[in-house]
Amino acid sequence: MKLRRSLLGLFALLSICMTAQNTKLPTLEDLIPGGATYRFAENIYNLQFWGDNYVLPGIEEMTIVNPKTGKTLYNVTLDQVNTTLEAADLLPIKHFYSVTFPWSDQPDMLISKPGKYILYNFATNKIDRVIDLHADGMNQDFNNESKHVAFTKKNNLYVDDKRITDNPEGVVSGQSVHRNEFGISKGTFWSPKGDKLAFYHMDESMVSEYPLVDVTARVAEPNNIRYPMAGMTSHKVQVGVYNPATQETIFLNTGDVTDRYFSNVSWSPDGSKIYLIELNRDQNEAKLCRFDATSGQLETVLLEEKHDKYVEPQNPIIFLPWNDKQFIYQSQKDGFNHLYLYDTDGKFIKQLTQGDWLVQEVLGFNAKTKEVIIASTELSPLDRSIYRVNVNTGKRTAIGSSKGVHRAQLSQSGEWVLDNYSTPIDARNIELINTKSNKSTRLLTAANPYAEFDMPTVEMGTIKAADGVTDLYYRLIKPADFDSTKVYPAIVYVYGGPHAQMINNSFNNSARGWDLYMANKGYIMLTVDNRGSSNRGLEFENATFRNLGIEEGKDQVKGVELLQSLPYVDANRIGIHGWSFGGHMTTAQLLRYPELYKVGVAGGPVIDWGYYEVMYGERYMDTPETNPEGYEAGNLNNLAGNLKGRLLMIHDDQDDTCVPQHTLSFMKACVDARTYPDLFIYPGHKHNVMGRDRVHLHEVITRYFEDHL
Amino acid sequence: MKLRRSLLGLFALLSICMTAQNTKLPTLEDLIPGGATYRFAENIYNLQFWGDNYVLPGIEEMTIVNPKTGKTLYNVTLDQVNTTLEAADLLPIKHFYSVTFPWSDQPDMLISKPGKYILYNFATNKIDRVIDLHADGMNQDFNNESKHVAFTKKNNLYVDDKRITDNPEGVVSGQSVHRNEFGISKGTFWSPKGDKLAFYHMDESMVSEYPLVDVTARVAEPNNIRYPMAGMTSHKVQVGVYNPATQETIFLNTGDVTDRYFSNVSWSPDGSKIYLIELNRDQNEAKLCRFDATSGQLETVLLEEKHDKYVEPQNPIIFLPWNDKQFIYQSQKDGFNHLYLYDTDGKFIKQLTQGDWLVQEVLGFNAKTKEVIIASTELSPLDRSIYRVNVNTGKRTAIGSSKGVHRAQLSQSGEWVLDNYSTPIDARNIELINTKSNKSTRLLTAANPYAEFDMPTVEMGTIKAADGVTDLYYRLIKPADFDSTKVYPAIVYVYGGPHAQMINNSFNNSARGWDLYMANKGYIMLTVDNRGSSNRGLEFENATFRNLGIEEGKDQVKGVELLQSLPYVDANRIGIHGWSFGGHMTTAQLLRYPELYKVGVAGGPVIDWGYYEVMYGERYMDTPETNPEGYEAGNLNNLAGNLKGRLLMIHDDQDDTCVPQHTLSFMKACVDARTYPDLFIYPGHKHNVMGRDRVHLHEVITRYFEDHL
Repeated sequence: MKLRRSLLGLFALLSICMTAQNTKLPTLEDLIPGGATYRFAENIYNLQFWGDNYVLPGIEEMTIVNPKTGKTLYNVTLDQVNTTLEAADLLPIKHFYSVTFPWSDQPDMLISKPGKYILYNFATNKIDRVIDLHADGMNQDFNNESKHVAFTKKNNLYVDDKRITDNPEGVVSGQSVHRNEFGISKGTFWSPKGDKLAFYHMDESMVSEYPLVDVTARVAEPNNIRYPMAGMTSHKVQVGVYNPATQETIFLNTGDVTDRYFSNVSWSPDGSKIYLIELNRDQNEAKLCRFDATSGQLETVLLEEKHDKYVEPQNPIIFLPWNDKQFIYQSQKDGFNHLYLYDTDGKFIKQLTQGDWLVQEVLGFNAKTKEVIIASTELSPLDRSIYRVNVNTGKRTAIGSSKGVHRAQLSQSGEWVLDNYSTPIDARNIELINTKSNKSTRLLTAANPYAEFDMPTVEMGTIKAADGVTDLYYRLIKPADFDSTKVYPAIVYVYGGPHAQMINNSFNNSARGWDLYMANKGYIMLTVDNRGSSNRGLEFENATFRNLGIEEGKDQVKGVELLQSLPYVDANRIGIHGWSFGGHMTTAQLLRYPELYKVGVAGGPVIDWGYYEVMYGERYMDTPETNPEGYEAGNLNNLAGNLKGRLLMIHDDQDDTCVPQHTLSFMKACVDARTYPDLFIYPGHKHNVMGRDRVHLHEVITRYFEDHL
Repeated sequence: MKLRRSLLGLFALLSICMTAQNTKLPTLEDLIPGGATYRFAENIYNLQFWGDNYVLPGIEEMTIVNPKTGKTLYNVTLDQVNTTLEAADLLPIKHFYSVTFPWSDQPDMLISKPGKYILYNFATNKIDRVIDLHADGMNQDFNNESKHVAFTKKNNLYVDDKRITDNPEGVVSGQSVHRNEFGISKGTFWSPKGDKLAFYHMDESMVSEYPLVDVTARVAEPNNIRYPMAGMTSHKVQVGVYNPATQETIFLNTGDVTDRYFSNVSWSPDGSKIYLIELNRDQNEAKLCRFDATSGQLETVLLEEKHDKYVEPQNPIIFLPWNDKQFIYQSQKDGFNHLYLYDTDGKFIKQLTQGDWLVQEVLGFNAKTKEVIIASTELSPLDRSIYRVNVNTGKRTAIGSSKGVHRAQLSQSGEWVLDNYSTPIDARNIELINTKSNKSTRLLTAANPYAEFDMPTVEMGTIKAADGVTDLYYRLIKPADFDSTKVYPAIVYVYGGPHAQMINNSFNNSARGWDLYMANKGYIMLTVDNRGSSNRGLEFENATFRNLGIEEGKDQVKGVELLQSLPYVDANRIGIHGWSFGGHMTTAQLLRYPELYKVGVAGGPVIDWGYYEVMYGERYMDTPETNPEGYEAGNLNNLAGNLKGRLLMIHDDQDDTCVPQHTLSFMKACVDARTYPDLFIYPGHKHNVMGRDRVHLHEVITRYFEDHL
């Protein structure tokens, strides 16, 4: 006995010494994007196709390779390029990481400089063309065919040298509308030949202004944003069509545009028609409409989609490259986002994909084989895999390895794919894949950027949702030196809102740097993708309709019950943290389940859906007039008196997504109710804290849990 | 030994039991104004003179007593008054606590109702007159003689029914100007007979606007205030004179009013002249000027005062009631505020008071005995005592007891005083005193409102300032159950700025409720009135010129050294708290002396004097252009990297005195410097948290010290 105890003591001592010698734990600076020593997984930046050849950019040189032969077609050096640029009195470039290759049929690369586009011929090392841009132009949209450039200055739209709108304050042309919902991310749409420009034209003069305040000015200055809040007067959007040849603009004849959304603008292949998907304000009825691009007249409504909750078209129609009369339309109407083939008379031809999984992206086509190349969750909701789908037969074939999260580019012909992916254990692989033979060439195997550190373990599993039926994925992270005989506090990281998924089969199962950091500090880190999150299909995601935060919260309780069941978790020391929708969830959970959570940190939260904007808010919540009980129940200001645990509210003073009124009204509600949240404000940041200050943010969050959990 | 130990044990046990049984400690609700059970010292509300008789108001009745005979002259009941009011279709009153007695020669009381002044004759129980007011008028100024009423609506000035200004936005008439500095608290000044109205007229259209934001609106709204910051363009003020008989307005002929202050407006007894004290923007030169009230012409500059630091006239001249050609002028020119007699040609007659003490207030005169009645610090800087001073002989005689802090009213003739005072041990006494005989009648002896509680002990003393010479008063508060063998954490409560004194000989030596509360929670509470604070004379107060916060901070270090020297204080657990200037001091001390303070709570602080306003800021700091090194050294944003202790910043989002830019810019400076303050914001409050929420505020402050000290 005595000997054994001594030996045990010796082992313990050795173990401590070894731990002390060998353990190297990453810091926040290592783990948080923006940190001084943040480690990106190695990558080939700006890797892309030029036609069916691929381009390997670099600093000193750039190589263009024929994937069929593996032979280098062009080897362009920085010296060569800069000699040519300087001879033409143009500023040199510093590397090849920002050049692009818009022309598959000519050896030109596009160099973008302040105030200039340069078409550089890498075969001849000559400058083919210089296009002057307005130096202060924004939203530049260059058409490869016609070489016209559309751009905006303040609230007006320009094409080449000509200002084509003359808007008063409150009217904006050529910029994204509807607050980037409905898949909208820009405001200009060139016709295929670049001879006509469709553009958004938004009158928001009737929308109330929210006063953000910039405290970095000598005297603080208002920075007013037009922000239509749920149930209030919204903006009016039209679609204009400008013809550079005639210098004339017409507007699509949509009639009274009040309370209507015009989304997913696309052109017919011949440039004569414009398609768009129109939604009513209630967002439960979508119409695919075709307009004549010259007269602006509505020609036909090709198809309509209705749902008693909501429809949310996010993808423009895409024409088959080999058939100008047929296009692919994406819909969740069978419960999962799938591809449907229609003809231009609106006739349904067939459903191209089907199953209890969803199409995440259409990458393009192989016209020769009549295939459409997609990314989908067919393997599992955690994976994003690349498939080719034969349009005629419906046959699907995996491209490359299916496991993991794949971000792929397709070559001009569709014969080749550049597949940039990660798996739970692979930080990043890049492969060149022949879509037909599925033969692949590994271009990069990135090392684990944290290989030198002792890292936490990441485990995956499923639990039942609060409905007792649905499986929810969870991710559990344990310290590098995890000891199952010890008891640890636990923190839930949550997002929980639609259009997002926190857990997948990317590197470390998508665990964030802060979660890894906290695990190593001795916290068990849990994340559960509750009902309402994405990649699980329509019914899973719209379970939260009209009651955002409530159903999701019940699922999060199931996650806490999992933690409570673990012998190595201290059930009295459970915290929760999230940002934006996750900030709402964090606050809501502390108020609705004060007995479960000791500490929360809520960043940029929605507090009252009445303060959120029209497009996103009303889709999921309807309006305060039509869903008063939902808004009442979801308004966390009404629950402020329930606060028992420690709750840190963090908000950015320039937050134009969740305006500061959310958090400030909650402070007032808590003062009124005599409860005691804490607060931090990040001046000068918008809806999150990015860059160098992101490390500060996570230090603040860490300290709060260290102080109080 | 054994017996003794047992006995000691028994005593200890008994002591614990007795403590447990008898100790009743006041809560924040008991101690903080606004608290549900806050205890005011008993008072006789609205006690006042009617001529030389005094009025005892009540709810059901009001008694008017002749002080000479002690006999009741009138006994007015609520029933009587309300029967009369109702008969005239006027709303009843609920008590006599808001009636006033502007006419010593007629038995009328003034009842103020929304939209109405009622002159009620309490001898006849009839209504003598009803004057209609504009219900939404502000700043009502009623003249007892002429019965004219001046008032403001928005930015315009009205007299009776007539609007006498027609101002565009940014121009304001009839309201206080120069941000209430220079003793200015209102914007209208009736001539003695009420036949002319002098008024301030301010053009602030050139002043930059600060955007406060009201988050209680449906969509947050800007609440812009004109706020001239140090060194920036300031407003322009004129003095107008309106004649109701001619309905004409003239302006005093002051020439170009740019960067000039017009303060301390007063009338000559005959109403033909207007006196005012003009200052240059640098505030180091004051001129007493006389204008003709009819022509507006400047007649003469009676006297000038200069100082290489600053002059700060705070009191209008006061004419002797028995000599229309002589007036009293107050000045600190000999180092203490004293009274000087001048004639209307500007000829100096004599200095009426003199000594190393200062006159705090002129209460009025006894014309018969040729005496002026004052409050002064003659007894000590901690006391405010009432004296009569013979204008002819200079002889001073104390009225009533000198000790303590006396707030007195003088009767019409000056023969009687109503003296409402407290001392460190008397919560409140009210005495009626004959100023000649000094005989007094006690009208009220208020009980200690905390008599039922175990209260801390309050001790007073002096320490040497950082200059090694000057005595500073301090106040030390110890728990009710203080045990000198124990070791306690300590908290400094600080203000430290000019025009204020935290310690005096009022009840509990002016200890605040929160200080008492924290003492009972086991903290030693210290306050030191540093150099720069008031009631100690010019040199003491202006020692901080051009370097606000720095000299004061050195004196506060002396206070910390006192704490460190006390065996029962844990020198490693010293905190500091203050608001406004005290918020500046708190933040500054944590940044300049990080080794001394573990925890600070700074409320509504000045962080950068460049963000403070022109009138107060430039008086003490000059401008950023003329004192760049002072602004640089005093800008706490430059010291943000020094933060080591825990610092909670509290700011009100409607703070129009220290705008939120102070605290928010500090948050940014700390983020930039990677330091970690905490934050709380009170929406809807201005420059402090008053009313019911004041209890919440002090709970927040308490928790912060409990969490971190």
